[in-house]
Amino acid sequence: MSDATTDASIDASTDASIDASTDASTDPVLVLADRARAASHGLAQATRATKDAALHAMADALLERAGQVLEANADDVRRAEQDGTPEGIVDRLRLSTERLEAMAQGLRDVAGLPDPVGEVVRGGTLANGLEMRQVRVPFGVVAMVYEARPNVTADAAGICLKSGNAVLLRGSSSAAVSNAAIVEVLRDAAAGAGLDPDVVQLVPADSRESVTTLMRARGRVDVLIPRGGAGLIRSVVEGSTVPVIETGVGNCHVYVDRAADLDKALAVVLNAKTHRPSVCNAAETLLVHADLADTFLPRVVAALQEAGVTVHGDPTTAALPGVVPATDDDWDTEYLTLDLAVGVVGSIDAAIDHVRRHSSAHSEAILTEDQSAARRFVAAVDSAAVLVNASTRFTDGGELGFGAEIGISTQKLHARGPMGLPEMTSTKYVVTGDGHVR
Amino acid sequence: MSDATTDASIDASTDASIDASTDASTDPVLVLADRARAASHGLAQATRATKDAALHAMADALLERAGQVLEANADDVRRAEQDGTPEGIVDRLRLSTERLEAMAQGLRDVAGLPDPVGEVVRGGTLANGLEMRQVRVPFGVVAMVYEARPNVTADAAGICLKSGNAVLLRGSSSAAVSNAAIVEVLRDAAAGAGLDPDVVQLVPADSRESVTTLMRARGRVDVLIPRGGAGLIRSVVEGSTVPVIETGVGNCHVYVDRAADLDKALAVVLNAKTHRPSVCNAAETLLVHADLADTFLPRVVAALQEAGVTVHGDPTTAALPGVVPATDDDWDTEYLTLDLAVGVVGSIDAAIDHVRRHSSAHSEAILTEDQSAARRFVAAVDSAAVLVNASTRFTDGGELGFGAEIGISTQKLHARGPMGLPEMTSTKYVVTGDGHVR
Repeated sequence: MSDATTDASIDASTDASIDASTDASTDPVLVLADRARAASHGLAQATRATKDAALHAMADALLERAGQVLEANADDVRRAEQDGTPEGIVDRLRLSTERLEAMAQGLRDVAGLPDPVGEVVRGGTLANGLEMRQVRVPFGVVAMVYEARPNVTADAAGICLKSGNAVLLRGSSSAAVSNAAIVEVLRDAAAGAGLDPDVVQLVPADSRESVTTLMRARGRVDVLIPRGGAGLIRSVVEGSTVPVIETGVGNCHVYVDRAADLDKALAVVLNAKTHRPSVCNAAETLLVHADLADTFLPRVVAALQEAGVTVHGDPTTAALPGVVPATDDDWDTEYLTLDLAVGVVGSIDAAIDHVRRHSSAHSEAILTEDQSAARRFVAAVDSAAVLVNASTRFTDGGELGFGAEIGISTQKLHARGPMGLPEMTSTKYVVTGDGHVR
Repeated sequence: MSDATTDASIDASTDASIDASTDASTDPVLVLADRARAASHGLAQATRATKDAALHAMADALLERAGQVLEANADDVRRAEQDGTPEGIVDRLRLSTERLEAMAQGLRDVAGLPDPVGEVVRGGTLANGLEMRQVRVPFGVVAMVYEARPNVTADAAGICLKSGNAVLLRGSSSAAVSNAAIVEVLRDAAAGAGLDPDVVQLVPADSRESVTTLMRARGRVDVLIPRGGAGLIRSVVEGSTVPVIETGVGNCHVYVDRAADLDKALAVVLNAKTHRPSVCNAAETLLVHADLADTFLPRVVAALQEAGVTVHGDPTTAALPGVVPATDDDWDTEYLTLDLAVGVVGSIDAAIDHVRRHSSAHSEAILTEDQSAARRFVAAVDSAAVLVNASTRFTDGGELGFGAEIGISTQKLHARGPMGLPEMTSTKYVVTGDGHVR
């Protein structure tokens, strides 16, 4: 098409009737959002080949410019140490050649995944001859608000780019220098691969205000994804007018049924609690059927303690050596440490009731060889993942074969559980006729 | 299972550690929400046979107790007439035997649709032998806030019941007596069919406060669906902490490309505007390519005027007889009447830009015989439905073969476009192993 625009009475140059939600703004965060919107139109129509080339270019650039990124990161680490930040958090902040290589590999892995954009979710020809297709399309502009780890910057940029979304990255102030360096490298690489660099932008982390602005940018930001602690997520969920995908808080339960194979149960409980206690799919509460109170309970408590776990027990469990009596709060706590609340339940229904009242609906597991107990638990427990004779640690995009994961949704709208590339898209209906009317 | 509960140290009878979001409440709306939650557990596990029997019982009861419902409705109609309500709105409020029969038939139609609950969306066996399934599950508790028409009460109740969701119905105060009668009939029928009647409950419409309470009932209400005018929808979207599915505002565009078949274009424009002007998928703006300004434009304007349409034109169009000059506001107005904004654009890109700036992203149509123009419009226009050589009136669950429709989503999260039964569900992952650990 090479249309002349001279005859147009109304066209893109007429700004008079632009609606409020797209008024030009001088707010610096909204300026970034508007640039992201402009860049998103081209990215939404970019071919897979273009996007994959950009992802590989970004991976190459992270390694080629490793010195620049590591130097920037050293600034953040120095500042954190001077501020007396606990070593565990400093360690999450710290980058190394190995961690940069992992970030680069993550981008290459995303390049290797199928492009979700354009996938036909359903389609067919209607009785009247109309052809209907429901097709995956990008959201448009995605904002990520996240804490600490600078590797999330590259991960989120890669997943958003592949799913055709422009992304606004609002990391923590403690990683501000690292994030600025990483984003500069990624933007340069994207531009070199022929994309508008504004598909990846860093939002200043110097005040809470930039988060608030993103939360209220309905019409400019299509989806907001908070990733971090419970406090961050709660404040975003409650204050945002932009649609939110809630991620990550996991008060996960393991229930050992009276019909459990006790050796399998012991292995799963230990794995769910101790394999990586700081993550959202680690177990935080163990419920044991009353029939096992004299046999399995002392055995599992001893094994947990042997593995360094502090057991917070209900009255029955607290009678065992070394167990701390549980308070009411323990049943609602996501420890993220080597602590575990342990209680005895009189029945599978009591276990289900306990889960309903205390779970964050992330992941719950049952250990049982009884088919009807498994069926009942799976039907009655309404969590993002329900596991039978398997560790809660399997609720993970990588483990489930999604290839990439931007977070684990604990809400019921849109996506629930681990979110891969398809979960980062919306759909639209394309209806084709030949002059069809009703 | 017939477990003894006597040995339990912690079980359902221990309420001490219930978390804040499920504290027992004395707020009357939250009491209803908590009853809905309790009823939702049983409904989520009800078989299709049970749910379909309840739907047929509800349809039967609406006809058997037609006298009671019509008498209640006469109260509402009398009150509306005394208040000087416009006849158009009174007519939407008014029930008749025919309308009750249509409501009953709607319930029977929903009974005839496949049960979305339990559908396996994806699944497979992982490399380590874990079996993974993503399964459709109900949301839990759905709240509907809607205006005027009492038939929505039965429609929404039927769709929610079939999709396994307990529903809180908050209709308009003008239909309060009708809605109370309908809900009483539906609840009695549900109970007679073996369901907890609290799966369908009416929320008092005597104050705005009940809407506000629903909007803030995060953790008690899983999804809130507003259905009504733009003002209602905006206030719910902006004030709600409960996840919302935004429905219905349609500022729909028809673009007649220079390569259009002009006879098809004329028929589609007339159908999109005049077939039923009061609904969200009616056209509100017509964009005509500049090459057609001397030929098609006068022809379509005359035909529209002949059909009773008031044309609000840009300067080129306003030069034609009987055309009202368009103001800036016209391009953003969802008239829902026999009014149409008409403008000339210099190119398909100018049409796309205009749509991007003014559309509510509901439905946009292009008329063209040019394959590359169609492809470009479809790729660049990001609306819930994009139609090629077909009327915007086809964006409708019934027309697209969904069998039932609870609304048309104009948001990008979760569901976009007409929402049928599957769109009223979430999913969960069920992962089955044999003692699997990481």
